[in-house]
Amino acid sequence: MPKNTLGIGDDCAVIPQREDESLLITTDLLVEGIHFLKDKITAKDLGHKSLAVNLSDIAAMGGIPEATFLSIALPKETELEWIDSFFEGYRELSEEAHAPLMGGDTTKSPDKIVINVAVLGKAKNNEIKYRSTAKSGDIIAISGLTGESAGGLEALLNDYPHSEIVDYLIGKHNRPKPHLDEGRFLSQYAAVHAMMDISDGIDSDLRHILKRSGVSAKIYLNKLPKSKELLEASKLYSLDYIRAILAGGEDYVLLITIDKNEFESIANSFRNQFGKELYPIGEIVKGEQKLHYYSGKIRCNSPEKVLIISNNGR
Amino acid sequence: MPKNTLGIGDDCAVIPQREDESLLITTDLLVEGIHFLKDKITAKDLGHKSLAVNLSDIAAMGGIPEATFLSIALPKETELEWIDSFFEGYRELSEEAHAPLMGGDTTKSPDKIVINVAVLGKAKNNEIKYRSTAKSGDIIAISGLTGESAGGLEALLNDYPHSEIVDYLIGKHNRPKPHLDEGRFLSQYAAVHAMMDISDGIDSDLRHILKRSGVSAKIYLNKLPKSKELLEASKLYSLDYIRAILAGGEDYVLLITIDKNEFESIANSFRNQFGKELYPIGEIVKGEQKLHYYSGKIRCNSPEKVLIISNNGR
Repeated sequence: MPKNTLGIGDDCAVIPQREDESLLITTDLLVEGIHFLKDKITAKDLGHKSLAVNLSDIAAMGGIPEATFLSIALPKETELEWIDSFFEGYRELSEEAHAPLMGGDTTKSPDKIVINVAVLGKAKNNEIKYRSTAKSGDIIAISGLTGESAGGLEALLNDYPHSEIVDYLIGKHNRPKPHLDEGRFLSQYAAVHAMMDISDGIDSDLRHILKRSGVSAKIYLNKLPKSKELLEASKLYSLDYIRAILAGGEDYVLLITIDKNEFESIANSFRNQFGKELYPIGEIVKGEQKLHYYSGKIRCNSPEKVLIISNNGR
Repeated sequence: MPKNTLGIGDDCAVIPQREDESLLITTDLLVEGIHFLKDKITAKDLGHKSLAVNLSDIAAMGGIPEATFLSIALPKETELEWIDSFFEGYRELSEEAHAPLMGGDTTKSPDKIVINVAVLGKAKNNEIKYRSTAKSGDIIAISGLTGESAGGLEALLNDYPHSEIVDYLIGKHNRPKPHLDEGRFLSQYAAVHAMMDISDGIDSDLRHILKRSGVSAKIYLNKLPKSKELLEASKLYSLDYIRAILAGGEDYVLLITIDKNEFESIANSFRNQFGKELYPIGEIVKGEQKLHYYSGKIRCNSPEKVLIISNNGR
């Protein structure tokens, strides 16, 4: 991969078009058996999710999606009803996001379903957010709860019996909502320094920001927002909720670093705009790309150790 | 798929950007066992071909490629050497075409290799060529020989012993050369009415033009250019060369319809520019999307019947 191109290592490739505007492009390949299990997700949800994870990449850089492209390879025994439902799920989200399906490729597959989605978007050059621009002193924040998707995955893989809570968590895993409006809103502030979406988990994704920005970070365990449904499920099924929150992944909320002097004001505007919180969970500090978790006076550097601290503290 | 979008049903999606310019986007999904056999193509050739078939779609509309995106899913047993060679083949063509690799996705696959390439290009609005604009009276022409690729595929599938001719034909199948310069050149003429690339064969692809333009066509069998290597191989291996020329596919030359009054002049300029022929093979006529083949006074409407005529005429 070329190294000197704008946007390489970010959520989208950035292709300058005019003095004030760039194209954003992202693409994701999903293979049955690796990225999804056909009996654990409905065709409609899979259609939704295939597009959602790509729209989330556009959101992560502050862009507006313009057009989507879907390539799908199907084994010949795939039921027509499955295909129709898949396209229905895809189309619903594509309409909601004003990002029409404009092309692609439908072809045969020997056995596994294969899906590739590419999304083309746009952003003003001075509003595009990167991973490499976090600054010492920034507040680290997230635009929504994490861990619920991982809880839903646990429920699916372990066949938890259906209940309101279990179905809620599974919904979070199978129908993620890309934070497009939140990304657009945040990108308009110069005080929002770095942004990305959380696909691998706070722990793993924050390390990308640290590496690319050349800074360290502190996360305060008591500040991590905790979903009450996830906490409830963790009691019922002895699910590691701290690990789910920090390292579960597939959350598709935004991870943001914001100038500390502007944080309160931006969080207030965010609350007014969306009726929800921008959660501060830590801060960017100087240093060599280290991530530390704090719980009172105890400090550790991995979600596994966080779990130990957290259990000791119970 | 939305029906009213520019470029739907053409080789690329067309996304207007400015008064005078549009983006072109194309994407193709290749799955091992369906689109290629790992033991019949080298990794380097596969890297080349994955990109070439997409560049050919940009060429088919008269565009200039700007950026490419590669998603690849690999089984865990894939040799590092294979991966390196694949990227080498991809990169060589990407550099030659000035179409840098700007993003993508590398991921795991349970067993088969899966490749998705997307290419972003540009074209001036008044130079973009579609399938829907062929006019009665137009000369139908092709920008290169067809059938050689199909001959190469036959050689691969039937394990013809290596020889200069066999290797030449295999090279045509595994390392197609997208006609980017030819497409750019032709797109500058208003007298070039319709254009597409030949991926399924003259017979199948010309029918797309007829359907979308609402016209019929005559193809003159004696005017079809015949590769001497293909003819030679057809003698040695009783290969159906007429079927290969008309319906073999994967030729990736351009299929063009041109105002008959301008054809000679454009074909001369083409010869001066590229040192090769623009082959006239037939003409567009009024009518309801029928394709007829002519051999002397005999007329037929399918490559199978062409084969019978042609064999009787031997």
